[in-house]
Amino acid sequence: MPPARADHDARREDVSAAVWRVLAEHGFPGLTLRAVAAALGASTGLVTHYFAGKRELVAHALDILEIRTAQRTRLAAPAPGLPALRTHIRNILPLTPDGLAMNRIWVSSWDVALADLDLFAAQTRRYERIRTALRESIVEAYRRGELPPGDPDEVAATALAFTHGLVVQALFDPDRFPADRQTRLADDFLARLAQPIG
Amino acid sequence: MPPARADHDARREDVSAAVWRVLAEHGFPGLTLRAVAAALGASTGLVTHYFAGKRELVAHALDILEIRTAQRTRLAAPAPGLPALRTHIRNILPLTPDGLAMNRIWVSSWDVALADLDLFAAQTRRYERIRTALRESIVEAYRRGELPPGDPDEVAATALAFTHGLVVQALFDPDRFPADRQTRLADDFLARLAQPIG
Repeated sequence: MPPARADHDARREDVSAAVWRVLAEHGFPGLTLRAVAAALGASTGLVTHYFAGKRELVAHALDILEIRTAQRTRLAAPAPGLPALRTHIRNILPLTPDGLAMNRIWVSSWDVALADLDLFAAQTRRYERIRTALRESIVEAYRRGELPPGDPDEVAATALAFTHGLVVQALFDPDRFPADRQTRLADDFLARLAQPIG
Repeated sequence: MPPARADHDARREDVSAAVWRVLAEHGFPGLTLRAVAAALGASTGLVTHYFAGKRELVAHALDILEIRTAQRTRLAAPAPGLPALRTHIRNILPLTPDGLAMNRIWVSSWDVALADLDLFAAQTRRYERIRTALRESIVEAYRRGELPPGDPDEVAATALAFTHGLVVQALFDPDRFPADRQTRLADDFLARLAQPIG
C-alpha cells in the first residue's frame, strides 16, 4: 500500500534535509544515493523512490541550494537604488561563516552544471535572474541620480562579474580577503560606478 | 630492467598528453587512471607507474593546465601600463573557442581544488601570482599617469575579481556574452578605473 500523501510529503522533507547535510559536508563529489541513504538511516532503495539516479539527485540538491540561499539571513537594504545594490552585493559575498559555506557549495556546483545540459540551462537562468534583480536597483539608482546615465544591463553584468570573481578569490584566500577587505573592495567598486566616465 | 632515462621521459610526455586529452574531453569528473590508460592504449598498471592514485593524477592535470594556459596563443601587450593590464584581462577572458575550452577546465578545477588541502594551496598561490602580474602593470600605469593614485593591491584584486566573474557569466551564457560584449565590458571597466574617485 503506498504511503498516505501527508506521510509522503513529510518523508520528502526528511530526504531533502538529508541531501542538504551530505552536500554541506562533502560537496557535489560526495553526493551519492548511498550517502543520502546513510544520512537518512534508510536503504538506498527508499532513496531511489525519490530520485531515479544521480542526475535527479544533483538537480534536487541545486534546487535546495537556491532555496537555502534565498532563505538565509540577509542584510536588509536601507533604501532602494544604490544602497540596495550595495546590500545585494554584500549578501552574495562570503562575509560570514554561513556565507562562506554556501559559496563553497555554489562554486562547487559550477563544475556539475558545466557537465550537464539541463543543469547548465538552469544555471544560465539563475544568473539572468540575479542580473535582473541587480538591474532593478541600478535603474532606481539612475532615477535617483545616484549613478550616472548608462546601460543598466551592462552595469548589472559588471557588478555580478565583480561580485562572483571576488567570491572566488575570497574562497581560495580567506586570510588575504577577510570580510572587512571584501566590503571595502565592494564599496570602492561602487564608488567608481557612481563616477561619470570621462 | 627499468627503462632508460630518455625512454622514460618520452613516455612521460605521452602520459601527459593522454591526461590532457581526457581532461579536455571529460573534465575533472571524468579524469580517472582507467580513462588515461584507455587514451594511451595502455594498461592501468602502466599509468599507476606515473601516478600513485587519483589525487596525484589530478595534481598533474592542474600543472598541465597551468602550462598549457601559459603556452596558448596570447595577445601581446602593445605597451606597458594600462594597455598591458587590458591585454592581461583579455588573455584571461573566453574570447576564442580555445579560451572557452581552457576556461571551462579552470572553472571545473575550482571544485576539485576546494576539496583538497594541497590543491587548494596551489590554487591560492596561482591567484596570488596572477594578482602580482596585474599589479606590475598597475604600478607602471601609475608611473605613466594612466591611472589615478591608489593601492595597487586593491586595484589588482578588483581587476581579477571582475575578470574571473565575467568568465563565469560568459561560460554559462555564451549567447548573451559574445566576445565583443566581453571586450566592451572590460574596456568600460578599465575606463572607470582610470577615473579618479571623487
